[in-house]
Amino acid sequence: MRKLIKKGTHKRGLAPGTLVHTGERKTEKVRITVFDYDADSYREQQVDSVEECLVFKDRPSVTWINIDGLHQVEVLEQLGRAFGLHPLVLEDILHTEQRPKAEDYGDYYYLVARMFHEKETELDLKAEQISLILGSNFVISFQEREGDVFDPVRERIRTGKGRVRKMGADYLAYALLDAIVDSYFVNLESIADRIESVEDELIDSPSPRTLQALYRLKSETLYFRKLIRPLRELVGALEREESPLLSKDLKVFLRDLYDHTVQVIDTVETLREMLMGMLDIYLSSISNRMNAVMKVLTIIATIFIPLTFIAGVYGMNFDYMPELHWRWGYLTVLLVMGAIFVGMLIYFRRKDWI
Amino acid sequence: MRKLIKKGTHKRGLAPGTLVHTGERKTEKVRITVFDYDADSYREQQVDSVEECLVFKDRPSVTWINIDGLHQVEVLEQLGRAFGLHPLVLEDILHTEQRPKAEDYGDYYYLVARMFHEKETELDLKAEQISLILGSNFVISFQEREGDVFDPVRERIRTGKGRVRKMGADYLAYALLDAIVDSYFVNLESIADRIESVEDELIDSPSPRTLQALYRLKSETLYFRKLIRPLRELVGALEREESPLLSKDLKVFLRDLYDHTVQVIDTVETLREMLMGMLDIYLSSISNRMNAVMKVLTIIATIFIPLTFIAGVYGMNFDYMPELHWRWGYLTVLLVMGAIFVGMLIYFRRKDWI
Amino acid sequence: MRKLIKKGTHKRGLAPGTLVHTGERKTEKVRITVFDYDADSYREQQVDSVEECLVFKDRPSVTWINIDGLHQVEVLEQLGRAFGLHPLVLEDILHTEQRPKAEDYGDYYYLVARMFHEKETELDLKAEQISLILGSNFVISFQEREGDVFDPVRERIRTGKGRVRKMGADYLAYALLDAIVDSYFVNLESIADRIESVEDELIDSPSPRTLQALYRLKSETLYFRKLIRPLRELVGALEREESPLLSKDLKVFLRDLYDHTVQVIDTVETLREMLMGMLDIYLSSISNRMNAVMKVLTIIATIFIPLTFIAGVYGMNFDYMPELHWRWGYLTVLLVMGAIFVGMLIYFRRKDWI
Amino acid sequence: MRKLIKKGTHKRGLAPGTLVHTGERKTEKVRITVFDYDADSYREQQVDSVEECLVFKDRPSVTWINIDGLHQVEVLEQLGRAFGLHPLVLEDILHTEQRPKAEDYGDYYYLVARMFHEKETELDLKAEQISLILGSNFVISFQEREGDVFDPVRERIRTGKGRVRKMGADYLAYALLDAIVDSYFVNLESIADRIESVEDELIDSPSPRTLQALYRLKSETLYFRKLIRPLRELVGALEREESPLLSKDLKVFLRDLYDHTVQVIDTVETLREMLMGMLDIYLSSISNRMNAVMKVLTIIATIFIPLTFIAGVYGMNFDYMPELHWRWGYLTVLLVMGAIFVGMLIYFRRKDWI
Amino acid sequence: MRKLIKKGTHKRGLAPGTLVHTGERKTEKVRITVFDYDADSYREQQVDSVEECLVFKDRPSVTWINIDGLHQVEVLEQLGRAFGLHPLVLEDILHTEQRPKAEDYGDYYYLVARMFHEKETELDLKAEQISLILGSNFVISFQEREGDVFDPVRERIRTGKGRVRKMGADYLAYALLDAIVDSYFVNLESIADRIESVEDELIDSPSPRTLQALYRLKSETLYFRKLIRPLRELVGALEREESPLLSKDLKVFLRDLYDHTVQVIDTVETLREMLMGMLDIYLSSISNRMNAVMKVLTIIATIFIPLTFIAGVYGMNFDYMPELHWRWGYLTVLLVMGAIFVGMLIYFRRKDWI
Repeated sequence: MRKLIKKGTHKRGLAPGTLVHTGERKTEKVRITVFDYDADSYREQQVDSVEECLVFKDRPSVTWINIDGLHQVEVLEQLGRAFGLHPLVLEDILHTEQRPKAEDYGDYYYLVARMFHEKETELDLKAEQISLILGSNFVISFQEREGDVFDPVRERIRTGKGRVRKMGADYLAYALLDAIVDSYFVNLESIADRIESVEDELIDSPSPRTLQALYRLKSETLYFRKLIRPLRELVGALEREESPLLSKDLKVFLRDLYDHTVQVIDTVETLREMLMGMLDIYLSSISNRMNAVMKVLTIIATIFIPLTFIAGVYGMNFDYMPELHWRWGYLTVLLVMGAIFVGMLIYFRRKDWI
Repeated sequence: MRKLIKKGTHKRGLAPGTLVHTGERKTEKVRITVFDYDADSYREQQVDSVEECLVFKDRPSVTWINIDGLHQVEVLEQLGRAFGLHPLVLEDILHTEQRPKAEDYGDYYYLVARMFHEKETELDLKAEQISLILGSNFVISFQEREGDVFDPVRERIRTGKGRVRKMGADYLAYALLDAIVDSYFVNLESIADRIESVEDELIDSPSPRTLQALYRLKSETLYFRKLIRPLRELVGALEREESPLLSKDLKVFLRDLYDHTVQVIDTVETLREMLMGMLDIYLSSISNRMNAVMKVLTIIATIFIPLTFIAGVYGMNFDYMPELHWRWGYLTVLLVMGAIFVGMLIYFRRKDWI
Repeated sequence: MRKLIKKGTHKRGLAPGTLVHTGERKTEKVRITVFDYDADSYREQQVDSVEECLVFKDRPSVTWINIDGLHQVEVLEQLGRAFGLHPLVLEDILHTEQRPKAEDYGDYYYLVARMFHEKETELDLKAEQISLILGSNFVISFQEREGDVFDPVRERIRTGKGRVRKMGADYLAYALLDAIVDSYFVNLESIADRIESVEDELIDSPSPRTLQALYRLKSETLYFRKLIRPLRELVGALEREESPLLSKDLKVFLRDLYDHTVQVIDTVETLREMLMGMLDIYLSSISNRMNAVMKVLTIIATIFIPLTFIAGVYGMNFDYMPELHWRWGYLTVLLVMGAIFVGMLIYFRRKDWI
Repeated sequence: MRKLIKKGTHKRGLAPGTLVHTGERKTEKVRITVFDYDADSYREQQVDSVEECLVFKDRPSVTWINIDGLHQVEVLEQLGRAFGLHPLVLEDILHTEQRPKAEDYGDYYYLVARMFHEKETELDLKAEQISLILGSNFVISFQEREGDVFDPVRERIRTGKGRVRKMGADYLAYALLDAIVDSYFVNLESIADRIESVEDELIDSPSPRTLQALYRLKSETLYFRKLIRPLRELVGALEREESPLLSKDLKVFLRDLYDHTVQVIDTVETLREMLMGMLDIYLSSISNRMNAVMKVLTIIATIFIPLTFIAGVYGMNFDYMPELHWRWGYLTVLLVMGAIFVGMLIYFRRKDWI
Repeated sequence: MRKLIKKGTHKRGLAPGTLVHTGERKTEKVRITVFDYDADSYREQQVDSVEECLVFKDRPSVTWINIDGLHQVEVLEQLGRAFGLHPLVLEDILHTEQRPKAEDYGDYYYLVARMFHEKETELDLKAEQISLILGSNFVISFQEREGDVFDPVRERIRTGKGRVRKMGADYLAYALLDAIVDSYFVNLESIADRIESVEDELIDSPSPRTLQALYRLKSETLYFRKLIRPLRELVGALEREESPLLSKDLKVFLRDLYDHTVQVIDTVETLREMLMGMLDIYLSSISNRMNAVMKVLTIIATIFIPLTFIAGVYGMNFDYMPELHWRWGYLTVLLVMGAIFVGMLIYFRRKDWI
């Protein structure tokens, strides 16, 4: 949970715009990959230095520069100078705890989104921050580590399927965002799967472990929601925006993306409400169990305490206890005890306890 | 519950606009039915291929093409080409987990709504997605499977009752939406019936089964609300819209539809709040029951434990216990025990426990 | 509760605008009463047929036609034709489950509100729907059954007190709405009275019956709120409206009415929050009671179980138990038991249990 | 609580604008006090009849007429005629259950606020209604009874301190509102003091009385909030208003007043959330106590029940029980019992129960 | 908690604009520090009287006057006269319970924010009020006591790093606000650390102390939120403002600051929801524990009560009890008891109780 608030730690005291990477170092080496394409051709290349990217900058074709790893601040500085990025943008790229947002800097858009990696059994809440710079004919994407959800986009660029090759850099940025939002559905599916399994457990055999699983799921859902909700504003703002960077044809795609985002948020909300309902179920399951325990205790005690009392009475050592000397005294007492026993059972049956 | 989040499953990785049907295959064969009518005449026809529909396209009369079954993607592609539908529209028709929405594509509107089928005892949450394309003189409706709530509309077209034959395609689209919203009232009635029966159970004999029924109802209500709420925006947007596709005369009908939609949502909200109240009732019913159990235990134990102690005392084997040799010792002890017994009963009566 | 959702039952499948009365038949015969008045004179008359009303239509004086009973659809149809009412208006008048609303049809306003009848001990949630048609010089009011809250308005027309005779039809419509809103205060008073009595019960002697009363009150409040809330929008909309039907002088009265409506809603909300707080009180009352029960049990058991054990020890039949043969053995044991008894009492006193 | 809804009681059935006083008669005689001042001089005077006030009306100096007591309707009628007040205003002044509001009647503003009197230990929820009429050069204030929070304002008029003498009637009205809002801080302080004392009690020794105190505080807070919240709109509306009655210089004071009002509401909300949290604390305190009770019971019962059983075994009267005749039988059994006793203690210690 | 509402205490009864310091006296002597800088040079100086500051007033360079300690009202009055501050501003500076706000007074802005000091283990809710006056070429900051979060800003002025020396007074005000918002992240971290440690305790060994820690954290979070939330409006308003005091270049920085503020609020909300979830966990932990206690009691009692009864039966002293004289009677009874014992164990094992 501490991750919720790590942002300022290493930055405090520095001037706004100072470049220090505050995230963990998640990859060994900064890896730069370039895609350059137009409707007719494409080129894919892994480069070693920022300089190599710059040759693509002034071509009319669309260029996608993808950076994996943020710990080499000088790479960012070079890119910043080359593409004229504002120091605050560079700072935000490095401080990997930004809320999703879209900022218009005139010549380019700065977009931040988040991507969740999944660990074995739970959502990795250390969501990776994805920063996108959308210029007139280029997109630069910054990732904290290797491995992402963009492979289908890459494949479409390579094969020329879909419309990505026929459209501009804005469509590429949209396609990347779309891939991220699509990945949320997978995250949600995995959360929902786990909710479902907890749901079964809840009904069959609730245990403190179930409660912890519920709590964990609730925290994850809260956190997920916190990171996803600003995305709706991001996409909504882009859709309304009038900018030369965003072609008219893109609007309908952004509207579609907006719908998906709203769907994600709706689903998160519904999951959250379900989880809250499940806690109530859990609590009343526990109450029910305690009730059952109490009933067993009450039945046993209520039946045997009076019987034991009777036995106790005839265990007294008074000299003058005439019943003790009756021929059928013992039998009578046994019969009386039996009658009480049966009477109690009938009483409990009537009360629906057994 | 997994249904809440199925959307992206088969689509991920494909370009936006790629046509793949992601719903279950709910009908054997795609069935195409055409209604073509104006104020004076009407024609109803089941056709085998998309081509046969096209003859109706350029006539001034209103044409309603209804498609049952979405698994034959080529049917959609043909329709898309013939009526100039945007690839994203076709994609949304196929991905049957859309939120209700209304999208203006200039030449036509794309509307999505949801229709609930009822199973025996519960709402089928696998709501069917109904897509409507409203053009200047045609309506195309896409359903996932056969069977719908449109029969009254069909009957009115056939008999010429009401105003459907006298008005345009926009009124037809309205009539279809109206039929869907009307069907929600039936869904709500069935939910309310079940709530009512759980309500009775809650008061008479709450059991863990009651709790599960409550939980089930709550999930259904949540899910229902999630799918219905966007409809208000849809209808509200249509009402405000200025479009040549929507005649002025329709506004008053849309306002009426809007009122109905709000009424549905109000009712769902009220049901939801009632359900939340019922959970509290359940929990306190359980507490009450536990209280009753505890009281029985306490009464029995509190009466007999002291009595048993007294019996125990006179069961001790000390040589010098003068009471044991008194003539009226036994009787005295029995009377003391009786007095304690009666005293306890009076005490409990005063405490209102018995 | 089923009443929450009855709307569509008999209507489904019919064309919008088809006239079928879906409410219960609440009065034997449709009764039509006409008031016709100006500043100088007034006329009050009970008529048998719609035709008799029409003579008043074109006079400059203000005409108020009140219809009690909706089950004779032909009466409505005649009125509709005579006053040029839209079929949807007539349909809404008949479907007596409308939300309160105000609709501007150019020549006239259509207003819907709800009036609650009180049964002996609880609010009759089968609120009666009151429809008002406000034309330039007439008001038509439709009620489901006889008996209403308009008598003071009638009296003022008859006696000429207040300003109703000096002003137009719009003031009459306002006066009727004002009478309805005033009646809500009476409804609220009766709910609050019942809350108050439950409140006392809650503190003195909470029982499952108290819980049911609470639940009933909560349902009523929820339902009341659901029906009242749209009224605020209704009055607010009228206040903002620029229409020749609404004179400028009326604005200040509508603002006053708006204030009252908001006051009603505020009060309902506050009552609702109080009720929620009372449930918490109830639950903790139950917990407190269980606690008290447990304490009694614990005190009795904790005192006597050890004592009984000691008695049991000296009831054993071992051959060699020297204590049994001591002269003061019995007394010693009794004293030990007494000491334990007193010690326990002191312990419980310290723990504040007794 | 009934106070929440008293408004309509005596009024129902009367024409809007009919003057009947619906509050309790809170003072013996209507007392009229007049302040008349400008920058240079001031005059303070208690008058017996409305006529005496009228001489001040047309002077350029600022006149403040304060009325204590509303039960003499004729006083109001005279004032209404003299200052041209709308009948609805007079009605609202008399119906002392208005929401705080500001109404612009062109020549004057009608403002309503509420003032809380404090009883010994709790807030007097029968808040007094303060009505203000702000004209171009006069302010009329109506109070239900004598005693108010305006003394500091009076003192400033008398001494000429502050800017009240230098500014117009609008500043006087502001100063009165400011005095009222300032008094809310005192009310809040007293509520917070009581919350604090309940807080201590909650931790040290929660009892059912604590719960009732909590409930009482919650009701008060709810009620307070209900009466204060509309004030924000009132002041906000005044601040935005463009009216010749409100000088430009006043805006900055109104903004300040608005800030204070928001601060009051913020604080009420925070108090309310605190109270809700305290209820949870209370409930879990009770649970904790029950837990402690249960532990004592369980420890005692769990230790002694098995021991009593062993004693019981050797109290049986079988002819052939060899242990009974062993030399060390008794001692062995005592030792076994001791071992069980110690074992149990260790077990409970491990479980952290003792 | 009383701090929530202290505002009005000493002020009540005074004219708005009267200068009385209502906070505690938090520092011995008022300390005035002046920074005067432009791009090329800077000067830092501690001055003894307000007069010494005035020499900087008309220079083109940026002047930052920092006041530590508010108890010398005459200092404020001198500054007020010298810089033309409105009396209400001075009053607000002294009343140290303002909500964060930004007020435009034409020639200058008045900004209020809050800074939290941390005590050893908890947040010092006596947040210090920081007032900023932003003029065209000066910033005056007022603090209640020495010690603040502005050292990094001072350092940047001294060293000329960052852009603070190159930009105007507006940037300085921004830098101070930014330093405050950055400090909130530290506060949040410390709250989150404590939440985390409570979280662990909750799972391992919940105790009443845990509950109090939870309650304390919840109060702190509520209070923190109350003081932080208005800041969003403050920064948002500054960002939208069109004023000659705020240069265009600053907008992007204010947008960045706004993002940080929203992030703080988001995090507070998430923490709050977490805390609410933790209370539920606590409550069900307690229930679980009680359940465990009950189980032990039930197992012991249920096993031994029937056995004790059997022993009691054969401890009776009837003359004719044939079993007592059987050779294997004792052994049989022991075996029967053993069988019951084992049977019970199996039963409980099946019920998953042991």
